[in-house]
Amino acid sequence: MPEKQEDAHAIVVDWGTTSLRAYLVTRDGVVLAEKKTGSGGIQFIADGRFEESLVGAIGGWLESAGKLPVIALGMVTSRNGWVEVPYVPCPANVAALARGTMRRLLPNGSDLIFLPGLTDPRGTPFPDVMRGEETQIVGFGLSTDITLVLPGTHSKWARVESGEIASFQTFVTGELYALLTRHSFIARSAGAAPEGPPDWNAFDRGAALAAERQPPTLLSELFSARTGMLAGRLKAQEIRDYVSGLIIAHEFAEAREQGWFKAGDTIGIVGNDGLNERYVRVAPLFGLAAVHGPDDAALLGALAISTCA
Amino acid sequence: MPEKQEDAHAIVVDWGTTSLRAYLVTRDGVVLAEKKTGSGGIQFIADGRFEESLVGAIGGWLESAGKLPVIALGMVTSRNGWVEVPYVPCPANVAALARGTMRRLLPNGSDLIFLPGLTDPRGTPFPDVMRGEETQIVGFGLSTDITLVLPGTHSKWARVESGEIASFQTFVTGELYALLTRHSFIARSAGAAPEGPPDWNAFDRGAALAAERQPPTLLSELFSARTGMLAGRLKAQEIRDYVSGLIIAHEFAEAREQGWFKAGDTIGIVGNDGLNERYVRVAPLFGLAAVHGPDDAALLGALAISTCA
Repeated sequence: MPEKQEDAHAIVVDWGTTSLRAYLVTRDGVVLAEKKTGSGGIQFIADGRFEESLVGAIGGWLESAGKLPVIALGMVTSRNGWVEVPYVPCPANVAALARGTMRRLLPNGSDLIFLPGLTDPRGTPFPDVMRGEETQIVGFGLSTDITLVLPGTHSKWARVESGEIASFQTFVTGELYALLTRHSFIARSAGAAPEGPPDWNAFDRGAALAAERQPPTLLSELFSARTGMLAGRLKAQEIRDYVSGLIIAHEFAEAREQGWFKAGDTIGIVGNDGLNERYVRVAPLFGLAAVHGPDDAALLGALAISTCA
Repeated sequence: MPEKQEDAHAIVVDWGTTSLRAYLVTRDGVVLAEKKTGSGGIQFIADGRFEESLVGAIGGWLESAGKLPVIALGMVTSRNGWVEVPYVPCPANVAALARGTMRRLLPNGSDLIFLPGLTDPRGTPFPDVMRGEETQIVGFGLSTDITLVLPGTHSKWARVESGEIASFQTFVTGELYALLTRHSFIARSAGAAPEGPPDWNAFDRGAALAAERQPPTLLSELFSARTGMLAGRLKAQEIRDYVSGLIIAHEFAEAREQGWFKAGDTIGIVGNDGLNERYVRVAPLFGLAAVHGPDDAALLGALAISTCA
């Protein structure tokens, strides 16, 4: 039996720098309706008009459903957002994240709940930070001890232990890939980004190189994107995925060196930014089995934290 | 007694992608006159008009001095240049580089000598390449066994042994620094590039971090440029030099891991692109003593190779 609008339990707003995505969800996280506004990202909000922008996006749902908790996460809770919600220090369980939320009332009396980010005070040389990924981790679940990776512009490796997010670390993998393939000698050699699926053969070659080298030596290996072309062993259209494989495998190599896993472990891969398949493919090169998190981990986590709050 | 125009022995043309620099030199490499044309780089040469452009730059010297050997090096000898000169494989001594030169005659009968680049066929995963740095290495001198580093967009570490350039490896340090400080989250935090000398304190902090970490873990350490700001321990104006120190020390760390040196060694630092002081500063963090090459290593090397040809 399909869920109906009457089952609406909450609205989750994933509100980032460049876009706003809102989901009308049931108690179990089933999505009844969703909206995405590319012009709604916090960088486009003038004069602090966050409430106006939010009501513009979800006002229709509130009119038909009445009062509903609205759960906001993402950069809207950062220093550059609407309400800066302090980072909760890890180790942190769901209750600790819930205690870190901040609230206000919307015009129709709905609770607006801002979720906190997470900081790892033992990060070196400085405390590490995440804002949004902690909610995805809660959505993945904290009941089993496991290491998780959340691929992205700034990938996160996190350790779940004893029902808590115990610790985590950031790797700038996605950003470095974008820099290299948009602005560097690699961009000039590779030409325009191709349509279609990844060139998995090229990806695997890059990943194999980085997985074989121990310890990691990124600054020298990246030059292989040029020398491979000069040697006639890398084609222009292969370079992007070759570099993608190389740099993602490097992330694994660094994570291993820093104790996030050892061969034989099972890791969880969480998130839905389109990179998961690449990470799944690299895992066996490091002796890892990989399990997928749910695609809607952020929604499930937002509901879990707000319910506990 | 100052050298006079009558002592002119050769013209060395360092002809790169973005500029052409020409030097009228004595037999010993003393510069009698020099010209630099920012619009003379090979990327600006239309319809293959290399000779016209060269004669435009050095024709006056040839008129007053008559026939002189003209020695060309740099990207003008590459696939995108005037004459593609094949890479000489290392190990290579001066005579081997001389045998790799290519020649043509200029309209006034002067010899135009194109210097070759160098390839290391044992580079992994593909043969490594340099074009121009091998000439600087010859200018530094091949008589003492030593490891050299040539800082730059694509830094080179090279081993001189038994009078030959034995092997070398490329690190994309300078390019990665430029990408990060022009286009990344680091660029957004750091704001405009400051005038004036480097912030050595910030540089040293970044270098110390990378030198302490073993093995190298660049993808995670780079995020410290953000977390340091969030923690109030890095100021916006410190970020560039902090990242510079971090990434250059990483180059040393990778070079050590790959066997280019061990603590207690003396290395040579060659080149004049403004980075040498930074490399000299990092060397002791890895237990290295550093000696400077001559500023005009490229000129001395060009003369040595052309004389042997």
